[in-house]
Amino acid sequence: MINVRTDLAVEARELYKQINKREADGIISEEEEIDNIKVTTVTIVNEDGAAKIGKPIGTYITIDIPEFTHYDGEIMDDVSEVLNNSMQKLIGVNTSKTALVVGLGNWNVTPDALGPKVVEKLMITRHLKAVMPDSIDESVRPVCALAPGVLGITGIETGEIIKAVADKIKPDMVICIDALASRSIRRVNRTIQIANTGISPGAGIGNKRMEINEENLGIPVIAIGVPTVVDAATIVNDAMDLVLDEMVSQSTEGGEFYKMLSNIDKNEKSHLIKSLLNPYVGDLMVTPKEVDVVIDSVSKIISNGLNMALQSNLDMDDINKFMS
Amino acid sequence: MINVRTDLAVEARELYKQINKREADGIISEEEEIDNIKVTTVTIVNEDGAAKIGKPIGTYITIDIPEFTHYDGEIMDDVSEVLNNSMQKLIGVNTSKTALVVGLGNWNVTPDALGPKVVEKLMITRHLKAVMPDSIDESVRPVCALAPGVLGITGIETGEIIKAVADKIKPDMVICIDALASRSIRRVNRTIQIANTGISPGAGIGNKRMEINEENLGIPVIAIGVPTVVDAATIVNDAMDLVLDEMVSQSTEGGEFYKMLSNIDKNEKSHLIKSLLNPYVGDLMVTPKEVDVVIDSVSKIISNGLNMALQSNLDMDDINKFMS
Amino acid sequence: MINVRTDLAVEARELYKQINKREADGIISEEEEIDNIKVTTVTIVNEDGAAKIGKPIGTYITIDIPEFTHYDGEIMDDVSEVLNNSMQKLIGVNTSKTALVVGLGNWNVTPDALGPKVVEKLMITRHLKAVMPDSIDESVRPVCALAPGVLGITGIETGEIIKAVADKIKPDMVICIDALASRSIRRVNRTIQIANTGISPGAGIGNKRMEINEENLGIPVIAIGVPTVVDAATIVNDAMDLVLDEMVSQSTEGGEFYKMLSNIDKNEKSHLIKSLLNPYVGDLMVTPKEVDVVIDSVSKIISNGLNMALQSNLDMDDINKFMS
Amino acid sequence: MINVRTDLAVEARELYKQINKREADGIISEEEEIDNIKVTTVTIVNEDGAAKIGKPIGTYITIDIPEFTHYDGEIMDDVSEVLNNSMQKLIGVNTSKTALVVGLGNWNVTPDALGPKVVEKLMITRHLKAVMPDSIDESVRPVCALAPGVLGITGIETGEIIKAVADKIKPDMVICIDALASRSIRRVNRTIQIANTGISPGAGIGNKRMEINEENLGIPVIAIGVPTVVDAATIVNDAMDLVLDEMVSQSTEGGEFYKMLSNIDKNEKSHLIKSLLNPYVGDLMVTPKEVDVVIDSVSKIISNGLNMALQSNLDMDDINKFMS
Repeated sequence: MINVRTDLAVEARELYKQINKREADGIISEEEEIDNIKVTTVTIVNEDGAAKIGKPIGTYITIDIPEFTHYDGEIMDDVSEVLNNSMQKLIGVNTSKTALVVGLGNWNVTPDALGPKVVEKLMITRHLKAVMPDSIDESVRPVCALAPGVLGITGIETGEIIKAVADKIKPDMVICIDALASRSIRRVNRTIQIANTGISPGAGIGNKRMEINEENLGIPVIAIGVPTVVDAATIVNDAMDLVLDEMVSQSTEGGEFYKMLSNIDKNEKSHLIKSLLNPYVGDLMVTPKEVDVVIDSVSKIISNGLNMALQSNLDMDDINKFMS
Repeated sequence: MINVRTDLAVEARELYKQINKREADGIISEEEEIDNIKVTTVTIVNEDGAAKIGKPIGTYITIDIPEFTHYDGEIMDDVSEVLNNSMQKLIGVNTSKTALVVGLGNWNVTPDALGPKVVEKLMITRHLKAVMPDSIDESVRPVCALAPGVLGITGIETGEIIKAVADKIKPDMVICIDALASRSIRRVNRTIQIANTGISPGAGIGNKRMEINEENLGIPVIAIGVPTVVDAATIVNDAMDLVLDEMVSQSTEGGEFYKMLSNIDKNEKSHLIKSLLNPYVGDLMVTPKEVDVVIDSVSKIISNGLNMALQSNLDMDDINKFMS
Repeated sequence: MINVRTDLAVEARELYKQINKREADGIISEEEEIDNIKVTTVTIVNEDGAAKIGKPIGTYITIDIPEFTHYDGEIMDDVSEVLNNSMQKLIGVNTSKTALVVGLGNWNVTPDALGPKVVEKLMITRHLKAVMPDSIDESVRPVCALAPGVLGITGIETGEIIKAVADKIKPDMVICIDALASRSIRRVNRTIQIANTGISPGAGIGNKRMEINEENLGIPVIAIGVPTVVDAATIVNDAMDLVLDEMVSQSTEGGEFYKMLSNIDKNEKSHLIKSLLNPYVGDLMVTPKEVDVVIDSVSKIISNGLNMALQSNLDMDDINKFMS
Repeated sequence: MINVRTDLAVEARELYKQINKREADGIISEEEEIDNIKVTTVTIVNEDGAAKIGKPIGTYITIDIPEFTHYDGEIMDDVSEVLNNSMQKLIGVNTSKTALVVGLGNWNVTPDALGPKVVEKLMITRHLKAVMPDSIDESVRPVCALAPGVLGITGIETGEIIKAVADKIKPDMVICIDALASRSIRRVNRTIQIANTGISPGAGIGNKRMEINEENLGIPVIAIGVPTVVDAATIVNDAMDLVLDEMVSQSTEGGEFYKMLSNIDKNEKSHLIKSLLNPYVGDLMVTPKEVDVVIDSVSKIISNGLNMALQSNLDMDDINKFMS
């Protein structure tokens, strides 16, 4: 039913509701507000719910980043704190458990570079016990990280690299950071989704085909994603829908014209979109002009929140001192 | 009449022809093909022509970059050679005349970084006569270059910086390189426009308000531009037009519905586009995903062609050796 | 007398004292300590003092950055605050006076990129009164900025560009940021020098030949510099001196060998250094391996301190919000 | 005996000869000249030779890059061709064998970024048979690549990552690219060493502790290295030696002073060096100022030569077209 592209459970659920005029069975959704930051938890409780919105069973926490956050250090810290709290529920407080953090995406394409940029700012500690055993005690969780690149750069499925490294170094959990595609410009760089379901095939900007989840890796996989682009085809499709909706609202239901509109919608729309975006179909993205600045800011929010969640025995000052 | 955004004279002329079903008065257009590369010269000969297509009087040479050029060193060299020939006609062969090359645009935003990237690869020679007088003779043209940044970065109008420096060092000509906006995805990164009219207000990706031309600077100003983005609003507008055209073609001329369509077009379209692109109106761009790679390749084509055109007494080997 | 390379007044004074066993006439030096940060003010009060240590008459404030500062956000803030206080004394509190900040140096060479990196993080406001008059009042100082590049990149003397722009836009003061060379590894990335004398010829990493000072520009010029490299020749020279000193201390004063050592020092040393560093004489630099990280951190310290000093009516929160 | 730092077999052999006044047993050295490019092959034939120059048994091919190559496209191509020929002897012509290329080093530190930069420019093909089976035939060798980063960035030994991935995807050979340390400024960025012995512990700029060789990975490992820095301690040590040599040559053999010089050499030198380079001992590097430009050029030479060697059935035009 839903064939337009979204990596966000909260959008998939909204679309279902919009089309079916009711909440899907097997989906539970809760909202709360912390420090003026909206947090929505969508839980897909069974296969029925999973099928209806096209996402695996699991918990999806969505944090809405308030407007102008990227220019206000204080609100950025508040969002990091909310992310910290949400992550701690999934990670747990036992800091003897090793985390492997994976920054997915292509560092050469600004809106796909979110994962690698987060990984750059993490507190990496797994090697320290070997390098300087005296300065490290149990309160510091072992954290290691990779930004493996994308298939076109490595010639290796990203999932293969992650599985190989995870099998070798045996972490207790994998945390993946990825740039996502949204259906809505409104959500671009403004939403953080945390899911305990890992990464599904086809998610992310670069149409990755890997499945990075607990079933494949044998350990829990938590995914943190932020939509950073909208497909050009989605924008164009939405534009056409808006025009058609406007037409329909002005025509008489059941009349000849009304029927014609339905026909156009079904037969011609995809053809029109293709002819418009040709010769670049599928390779175009829509992104804010200041994308570089915003990706920097979002990556800071996530790395701060993640550092705090992983190192729950340290405060921000300890973490900053440790970064040496 | 024409209010959709294009920086390309060749597009403005096509739009005029499409709407008015005839060539504009005061416009002369010629096409030739060199090494399978199409070169179109549009000359606006009088104020009438200028008004009709919304561009100043002058000569606009458009070079079409063949498909797949960015991956083929040989075709890249061919395009550089065509650019060299077109530029030499405008620059002249007197290599004692100093050129100031200006790379316009914001180096932090990939599709706006074209100008700064070209400037990086130029053969800079103006200072050499002072630094090593023996190794430099009359055959080498003095060339200097600036990438002044954009208003938001400097707090100074780019035109002010260029005028200040030009008044101080008194070059014989200014050559500006800029990333442009196109109406058509088909032209993005595939067209080089050379104009002897300088840069008009509002041209370029960043809506610059400067006018950098012979009238203001007192010396000839040649602009080299490449469209690297399409405004999201343009894509959406085109999508709506396609739908409306399809409607019109299926409705009876003069009928009630036909009239309604015209009304919608006029009254609702801009409102619909705004509601769709909100909250980012005006700040969204559509660009190919591999924009980083393509901008690198186009900047090499331009810098090679420009180095050859400026140093007409040297061959490519001399230029490469000089770059030390 | 002093022919070894240093851009720091505090080092030049130390060298003079070391060689002459007393303070130079015409030099006043004061030390204070703020928040455990040592601040040394060297004032050259007359031409005699200027000749003795090879620096122009004026005030040179040196801030010592404590060890490990680059990894501790809190100490970084303390150093920014000390810089803010020192700068405010030189700039004054009248925020209607426009400042032009110039980031000197080559952004392509990591240890020379300090100036451009500071400029990137400044609060740029000069254009805002035109762009959005309602949101700007008198409390905001007009600030503009340039990173003009170096002679080899532009073909234009950096001093010419700055003078051209300053003559055109008429700021009330110029503030230059530059990477310097030190005599001592101990000072590299650990010292900030603020001078009201501008930039002398030959200062900075790239051997610039410009003189950017009040005499040339007609307005006050304040220079902020940080040593980021030591010339390889300096290190080698120091190594030889250490060996020779050791020799001397073990030989009998006035003896034959003692004389020989003096001869070697004078006749052979520069020849030995050249033969050692050949074929790269003059182009080698010594720099810490983690130079990228440290330059980032120093540029943050300076940009924060400078933003506070320039915008004395705003607090850090206002400044962060403004950066939108 | 030899405790000064060099990663080059050719330097280790020279040092041995210099100290012992004869060639080491178990070492065979041959020189040839191709297109004015000197190629030296040092073969360590037994454990005796290995012990004498501190390198494992194997073949070390050293290509001397002629002066000014970095500014001359033609000579760059010649060096790539020589590298191609040397590599083909080690790789063999059976293009059905898969190669995993590993770019070692830290991309954030310019002189250590050589490996990652080479990997960026490789023709990656391993995934193409799956993605577009029709366009790929047996003539194209499957190539994949990784730039895993360094221990401080990932928290994982680089050798562990490579072994994990190699065990998982089972290539037929591993090719490592690494930035090395040289004893001599003269060799910096001017020497390419190819060795069939893999990477030894402690090699490379960052003091890696991994051993990446056939014994550990179970498949042949070829290492391509270029010295891009000299340790500051080496330069200082050499400076002291030069002074001491000069002293010795001026003193009477067997005399009191002659003896003193020997004492100084042994007892004081390392202390002097430490006091000089303190507080940065071990973390300082000496590098040409234009290091960014040169690393770019060397990485192009290597990637071109390696692409040709790996794809022996394709010519450079095919390779360029393929890069799409």
